Order: sequence, then C-alpha cells, then structure tokens
Amino acid sequence: MQSLFKNIALVSRQNTPTIAEPIKRLAQMLAGQGARVLIETESAIEHGLDTFDRVERADIGKVADLAIVLGGDGTMLGVARLVAPYRTPLIGVNQGRLGFMTDLPLDEMERRVGEILAGAFVPEERILLETSVRRDGNEIAQALAFNDVVFSRGSTGSMIEFEVFIDRQFVYSQRSDGLIVSTPTGSTAYALASGGPIMHPSLPAIALVPICPQSLSNRPIVVNDTCEVEFLLTRAHDARVYFDNQSDCELREEDRVLIRRYRNTLRILHPVGYDYYDTLRVKLHWGTRLH
Amino acid sequence: MQSLFKNIALVSRQNTPTIAEPIKRLAQMLAGQGARVLIETESAIEHGLDTFDRVERADIGKVADLAIVLGGDGTMLGVARLVAPYRTPLIGVNQGRLGFMTDLPLDEMERRVGEILAGAFVPEERILLETSVRRDGNEIAQALAFNDVVFSRGSTGSMIEFEVFIDRQFVYSQRSDGLIVSTPTGSTAYALASGGPIMHPSLPAIALVPICPQSLSNRPIVVNDTCEVEFLLTRAHDARVYFDNQSDCELREEDRVLIRRYRNTLRILHPVGYDYYDTLRVKLHWGTRLH
Amino acid sequence: MQSLFKNIALVSRQNTPTIAEPIKRLAQMLAGQGARVLIETESAIEHGLDTFDRVERADIGKVADLAIVLGGDGTMLGVARLVAPYRTPLIGVNQGRLGFMTDLPLDEMERRVGEILAGAFVPEERILLETSVRRDGNEIAQALAFNDVVFSRGSTGSMIEFEVFIDRQFVYSQRSDGLIVSTPTGSTAYALASGGPIMHPSLPAIALVPICPQSLSNRPIVVNDTCEVEFLLTRAHDARVYFDNQSDCELREEDRVLIRRYRNTLRILHPVGYDYYDTLRVKLHWGTRLH
Amino acid sequence: MQSLFKNIALVSRQNTPTIAEPIKRLAQMLAGQGARVLIETESAIEHGLDTFDRVERADIGKVADLAIVLGGDGTMLGVARLVAPYRTPLIGVNQGRLGFMTDLPLDEMERRVGEILAGAFVPEERILLETSVRRDGNEIAQALAFNDVVFSRGSTGSMIEFEVFIDRQFVYSQRSDGLIVSTPTGSTAYALASGGPIMHPSLPAIALVPICPQSLSNRPIVVNDTCEVEFLLTRAHDARVYFDNQSDCELREEDRVLIRRYRNTLRILHPVGYDYYDTLRVKLHWGTRLH
Repeated sequence: MQSLFKNIALVSRQNTPTIAEPIKRLAQMLAGQGARVLIETESAIEHGLDTFDRVERADIGKVADLAIVLGGDGTMLGVARLVAPYRTPLIGVNQGRLGFMTDLPLDEMERRVGEILAGAFVPEERILLETSVRRDGNEIAQALAFNDVVFSRGSTGSMIEFEVFIDRQFVYSQRSDGLIVSTPTGSTAYALASGGPIMHPSLPAIALVPICPQSLSNRPIVVNDTCEVEFLLTRAHDARVYFDNQSDCELREEDRVLIRRYRNTLRILHPVGYDYYDTLRVKLHWGTRLH
Repeated sequence: MQSLFKNIALVSRQNTPTIAEPIKRLAQMLAGQGARVLIETESAIEHGLDTFDRVERADIGKVADLAIVLGGDGTMLGVARLVAPYRTPLIGVNQGRLGFMTDLPLDEMERRVGEILAGAFVPEERILLETSVRRDGNEIAQALAFNDVVFSRGSTGSMIEFEVFIDRQFVYSQRSDGLIVSTPTGSTAYALASGGPIMHPSLPAIALVPICPQSLSNRPIVVNDTCEVEFLLTRAHDARVYFDNQSDCELREEDRVLIRRYRNTLRILHPVGYDYYDTLRVKLHWGTRLH
Repeated sequence: MQSLFKNIALVSRQNTPTIAEPIKRLAQMLAGQGARVLIETESAIEHGLDTFDRVERADIGKVADLAIVLGGDGTMLGVARLVAPYRTPLIGVNQGRLGFMTDLPLDEMERRVGEILAGAFVPEERILLETSVRRDGNEIAQALAFNDVVFSRGSTGSMIEFEVFIDRQFVYSQRSDGLIVSTPTGSTAYALASGGPIMHPSLPAIALVPICPQSLSNRPIVVNDTCEVEFLLTRAHDARVYFDNQSDCELREEDRVLIRRYRNTLRILHPVGYDYYDTLRVKLHWGTRLH
Repeated sequence: MQSLFKNIALVSRQNTPTIAEPIKRLAQMLAGQGARVLIETESAIEHGLDTFDRVERADIGKVADLAIVLGGDGTMLGVARLVAPYRTPLIGVNQGRLGFMTDLPLDEMERRVGEILAGAFVPEERILLETSVRRDGNEIAQALAFNDVVFSRGSTGSMIEFEVFIDRQFVYSQRSDGLIVSTPTGSTAYALASGGPIMHPSLPAIALVPICPQSLSNRPIVVNDTCEVEFLLTRAHDARVYFDNQSDCELREEDRVLIRRYRNTLRILHPVGYDYYDTLRVKLHWGTRLH
C-alpha cells in the first residue's frame, strides 16, 4: 500500500537522551517502509543520527508531508506554530506521561505509527491564534499561538489596566495581573490554572480568562472563534504579551493588540480509538466508570 | 409601511400591578397601528383589559406572529419554552431593571417597539435544550429548556453520584451536589453562580458545570451544541432534574437523561444598537471605559 | 505501666463485614492488656462479638475512657457528636483509605494502638459547633456538629434568601443555594467542594462558605471561633439546616439559627509522628518533596 | 480634657493637590487643641505647609504619639510598615472612597478626629509579617509586611516551583505563578483576587494562597499566626518576593524565605460605631438588609 506521507520529519524534545534509541528505531522503520526520513537538525546532532537527511526546524513545514514529534506537549506546541502555515499534519509520541496532544505511548509507537501511515487515523483540526501588536498605528510584532496569547504584568508586581473589545464592541476595562486569550487547545493549560473552562478541541471558540482580576465579577468569557479580540493597554509600569509562553513582546501604554483565528488549522493525527475525554480523565484524575 | 407582525401577543409578569397602565398603553398603540392585539388571558384578567382579544398562554405560539413580554428574564423564560416550537419571535420589556433578555426599558417602550415593528431591529437566535428522561428503556418525561437542565440532589442533603457521556463517549463519573447543563443564555444564570464561564449567545455551545463537586478537578466543560449529553444517575437517595427551574421530574437510580439542542432556535428582537456586552457590563458591574 | 484508659469502647462502620476479624483481634488485645472492652451494640451484633460487654452508642461517652473507631471519617463524625459532651477521646482506624481523622492504618492497628495506650500519642483538640434553631422566640431544635452546619434549599430548586449576623452585627443578605458554617475539621469536607479554604485543625476559627451565591462577591469569610453566627431565613419555599449531614431540621421564613462554638472540644489521639500536612498531601494529591 | 496624643504626625498621599486644604485645616485644628503637629516632610513640601514642624517619614514612629494618614489604603500600608516597630497608632482619613483602613470620610474628619482625640475610639490591633530571605545560610534581606508577602514569577512568564514548610513540617511542593502569604488585613487585597478567603482582622491567622497553581487541588490554607512559614525556591528562571507590593527582592534557586508574625501589632483607631462588616459590605457590594 502507498502511504499518503512520503517525506516524514522527526523532531525530539531537547536534552532528552532517552529518546536517542526510539527515534533511531522509528527512523529505520519509516525508511524501511519507503518513506524519506528527515531528522530535525538539533535532534540529529543530539542523538548522533548521521545516516538520515536533516531538516532545519523552521523548514519542516516546507519539506515534510508529516511531522512526528517525540516529547511532550511543549515540544508539540513549538513545532505546531512553525508548521501551521504549511498545514503539515502532526503525530505526537510521549515518553510515558500521556500528553493532551502527544497521545501515542512510546512502547506502542511503531505499531501505532504504522497504522496511521496505512491510513487508519482520526484526524483532528485545531485552531491557532494570529496576533498583531500595534504601536502608534504601526505593527511592531506578530506571532502565531496554538495554546494562548497571554497579557501579563512584568516583574514590578503591579497590576495592569486595560480595555478589551470584541468585534470592535467595548467589553470591559479591567485591573488584574493579566488576561489569557486561549484556544480550546490552551484551555487545559494556563487558562485552566487561572479558572477558565475546559473547551473541547472541536469547539469553534476562544476564551478570555482574567488572571487574578481585582473585580470578582470579571469571569471567563467564551466567544465564537470568528471574533476579533482587541486588547488596549491603558496603564502599566511593565507589561508583556506572551505567545504560547515561547516568545514574547514588551508592551507600552496605548499599545493595541489584535487577535484573531489564524486562516489555517493545525491537523493532528490520532490513532483509531482516540478519545479526548479519555485523555482528560487521565490527566485530571477524574472518576472512572462506576459499574 | 406594512409591519411584518399582524398578530401580536402581550404577556406580563404575574402579580405586578404597575404593569397595568403600560400594557394598556402598548396595546392601544399597537391596535392604533393596525395590529391585532392578543392579551394573554391571565395578564388580561390581572390588569382588567377587556377590550382586546385574549389568548391562552399555551396558544401564543400558534396564533401570534410576535410576542411582547413585559416583565423580567423569568417571565421571558417561561414564554420562550412555550413559543419555541412555533418560532414566534419575542421582544422583552423590563420595568426598570435591565434584564439579559428584557432589554427595552419601559420608558422607551413605545418608541422602541415602534421602531422594531417598522423593521429596524437586531434579531438574535438562541438555542434551547430538549430533554428526554428514560426509565427502564421508556421515556417518562420530556421538556424544553432555554437556560439550563439542572440535575440536583433533593432535600436529603446527600451528594449524588452519576456518570456523564457525550456523543456516547464516557466522560466521567462524579460525586457532587449536581450538574448544570447550560445554554449560552443560561450561562449568566445559575451556571455562573456555580463557577461556569459566560458564553456569548451566538456561541454554538453547551456547558457542563458541576455543582460543588467533591473532586476539585471536576471543572466546567464547554462542548459543541451538536453534542448529545447523557446523564446516568448511579447513586442517590433523592435526586431531581429541573428545566429552567420552572418544571422538574424526580429521578431514580439507573435513570438516563438525554439532552440535545432543540431543532428550533428562539428569536429575540432587539432594538438597533443593542450590544450584549453593554448588558453584561451593567449586570456584572464591570469597569467602563477609562478615557 | 498503667494505662490511662481502663474502659475502652470499640465502634465499627456499619455493614462492613471485613471489620469483623480486626475488631475481634483488637478487642482481644485490649482485654489481654487488662482493659475493660465495651463493644458498641450494633457493631457487636453485626460481627457476632458475644464475649465482650456491650454499650449502646449513645452511652459510650458516659462509660468509656476512650473510644476506638474502625471505619471512615463518617463513622468518626457520628461518634464525635455523641461523646463530645463527655470529653471522651477518640482514636480512628481506617481500613486502607487514609481519613482526615481515621489516620491509623488497619495493618498497623495493634502496634499503634498499643503505643497510644502506653502514653505515646499526639493529642489534638478540635472544636464543635452548637446550634439552636428559634421560631417565634422559642427554641425548636438544637444540635452539635463537628464538620459543619449547612443551610440549604430543599427540593424545589429555588434559591433561598437570608441574612447573616456575626456577634449581632449585620454582615450581609444573600441569595444562594445555601450557606455552610464550618469548623476547621469540616473545612476539608463539603466546605472545600463549595470553594472554602482549608483551615488547620488548631486554628480557632469558623468559616462561612456560601453555596452558589448569586452575587459573585459573596466569598468565604473566616472569623474567630468565639463569634456567634446568626442566620435569619428571609425567603424560601423549602429550606433546611443540616448538622454534619447526619441530622436535619426544616426551616420556615423568619426562623433564626444561632451557632456558636461548643463548650467542649473533641480530643483525637494520634500516633507519634502524626502530621496533618501529610494527610492533606495524600488526600489532595499534592506535590511531594522535589529533591 | 487632656488628650492621650501630644505629638501628632500628618501624612498625605503623594501627588494629590486636593488634600492641601484639608490637611491644613486638620493641622490648625490640632494645633488649636494644644497638640504639637508634625507634617511629614514630603507632604509639607507638596502642600506648602511651612508653619508646622516637619518630620521625616522614617522618623514618624520615633517622635509621634499618633499618625493621621490622609489618602487611601496604599498610603496607610506604607506608613504602617514604618511605624510598626514603635507601636504608634494610626488614624486613616479617605477622600471620598471608603478604604478598608482609611475609614473616616474627609467631610467628617474634624469632628471624628476630635472625638478620637477625646478618647472615644475603637482600637483595633492588626498583625504584620516579618520576613527573612536566606541565601547560602546568610540573611540577604529582611522586611515587614502589613498586607502580604508575595512570591511571584518575574517577566519570563514561566511558572516557578517551590516547597512550603510550616513549623518545619513539609506541606507541599507546587508549580504555579506564585504564592501569597497574607495577613487578615491583606485578605481583602491581592489574596482575594487570587481566590483566598476573607479573614476578619481580629483572626489570629495567616493565609497561604496559591497564584494560578497548575494543580487544581492546591487550595488556600489558613493557619495559626504563631506558625512559621518557610518557602524554598526549587526552580525558577526569574522569581521575586514582594512586601506589600512596595518593596521587593530577587530570588535565586535554593533561596529560603522565613515568614513569621512580627512581635508588634499595628494599632488603628476607628471612630465609635466602626464595624468591619459595614466596610466589607460597601466595598464588595454585598446585599443590604432586606426589611
């Protein structure tokens, strides 16, 4: 049978020697099935994989038909933001601790990846957020985020004050430690720790979750993912906006930040039988069936 | 100009003598514009409105092209559940205290209703939930809800135990005071008091909000409104399911309750300039614009 | 060495056949050490313990110098309320699942109880609440509670409205599902599920924790345990007050309920090395030491 | 009548021109009653008060028998930390917006202060926290706090990891944005925004309130104010400890911070009729009496 995926990139979490052997095994299996295997350059160097082609992390989207990530949700996030413009699908393999996105266990990796390559998979489309930071009418930064865009006070310890608009309609002014604008994917990350709801990955929604708001009635709001969210910093000594907590940008008073759903979704391939609620239940220690 | 609405029903909150004069004024104005005015029977009796046709509350949907509710969100809820099968649109007039759905103030009533009848309005479609209670394979009750379907312990004070399934997939077992299954409309009612998120009325979503769950990780979940939610009562001395807190049904162990979005939406007509966030801001005392 | 405890009562959780053998073993061990062993009547019948003296549950406090409870925190609660007037100390033995009060594991029971009887124990004094329900100036009920006094709506589903006074000073009026007045012992029970703080057992405090309050600013309050809390029911179709969720009393509008710390504390004897935080950490799955 | 307070210091909020006239009026009134009036140097310069003696902010405690603060709770906090070592009592005057500590309204200032000086007042003792920061066995900083000691991630956006000990017993390890150690005074400030309980000022307690903890079971804990709390930073890129959000100290991994109740309490003098619950009710928009 002919696989859909000819060029397959492999990426591993950094500084994780235990991945050396599994990534080599996986590469050999894929090559044996006729795929062209591309090892992400840093992963190749870390694990001494010299016999396969290499690909720079930033080029994965351009050259690969599929990327397999060996690591945790953090590694997955970083790759997701890079490949999203190219719509390259992802498979996530964890090393023992189930992740929300890295749902294949290492010890079933070869069998499960084999099944997916053979066409037996559950595809899942997840949204990303596209952010534009504007100062004095000019865009000074832009970024993609897969989990969340987080506005936050910096190290001075003082709360920040800001206004929020949705589709150009004024929503509220707020004094707080910050605000999380989260995708469904991000709803089980920082937004959950800050009191936000869990959103199913297929929900076409964005959540606005305040961080320690001074007013107790500033509760999380969930809006349609077609909405444009605008954040206007009105008062702060020191404020920043973070993208998936992997990059950030300093903000000044009067800066405006526009957030909207990115034009592409990110596609994750799960093995047959995948169930989001199973993952939630394990990760959050929820009660299992009673009888 | 010809109005879209020929037959207009008027309904008022019960036991509210101050509505007598406004409802009469409104009826006269509408009749003067050529509409056929139908006063809901109990409202007609309470306010002594003898010169207009009457309509039973249960028949409003059948005979009216539009229903105008004078009262609060509670009155609106009750009418909404009755007219939903007929898709009769609603207008809500409050008597001073802004409601989430009753957004026309009494002192602007005639002008605003006039504008709406002339075709200047912002229509809003809101979902309802359809519930089927099953015992031993038979349906023992069914109901519509506009705010929420609430599973709750009764007066024994003991927590109940139950399992939840979404689209036939097991989600969790839970021990708690109960569970709220809420529409976006209901998200600012009981669900909010119980820790749920605010959902914009246009969000195609249903929230599951636990009431005082024993496990601290049982947090609110928001899912697509195409989902079918199933509740299975596994252990309870005394449990009930409530529909908009206006009707209810006793539950026994092993009863199953199926909840899905109702086929029709309910249409609310707002005046031009209506903004959901303005209402939220007023009701929740949120911060206004800063400069 | 002479033990402090000559007359020792044993009580077991009901309907728990697995306790038959351990309770017999414990009784024989205690008798062998010269103590007079009294088996609580229902426990004796359930487990067929004919060779020891029996004591009615209500008389344990009168005749025993020490009561040993085999079961969970629920069994402990029930016994605590009965013995509190007599200051009889308690030891709690669990059957596998650590309890907040039943901290001796069954498989260390004999050794640990032996050490305690020999005088090696950590005593802990815990407060109880004394409640008086007043109607038209007369007391219609009174009760002790070890965990909490809970005011709650009944099965109509409607919120209740009430006023709270502390030391005769008005605190607030509230519309909610109810109010929990909790001791430190109760702070890890229903109060925690309702959003209350954890209070160390030695803290001389009472917490007032609202249940699903309509106003989002009605947050838990912690006051000195010398305070007198007064609850005045102002509006309810159906309301009750529950004591440790083991007994209750129906309430009518205008009923007043007075709650104050009971004159006696309850004494729990823990083995040497007991640490409240260890128990919390296990029960709440908190993070362990990192290095 | 002879006043208890001969030397009275006046301090005003900075950059608040509207205080110029009231502070002058108050100074003249006090001088007229025979008190020696000392104006805090910066306040004297800002408001051009040349005819009264001046006192450096840091010396108020040494030379004054009473300090009157005109401003908000923030100004009060700053003065409280300075005078605490000398047990100088404070009176707080607000300029319109009621404060938790600044409870005298400006337009009743002269009458109310007069009554207090005449001996008609309600004294209230509030605890402070004393903190010692230790690195490699040496103390590198120490500070007093009246509201809270806050451990917090800095501007990198990464959560911090730490361990907490109470009276040398290990409590938990935690991954979060930080931890608030709060007095009852601070319980209505940042700790409340972060989910902590309200504590009555007279409660001999300290609350530990996690900030956005990754684990949902890391809930606020209230312990006796005789407890020593120890914080050990185990992992952080960038962490700080803040004292009343007015001063701070950078922390490194392995730093230990010890917090205990300060030996002195701070004394606030309230007018007769003062009621903490009245203030809470106004500040939190709680429901008033119903009939």
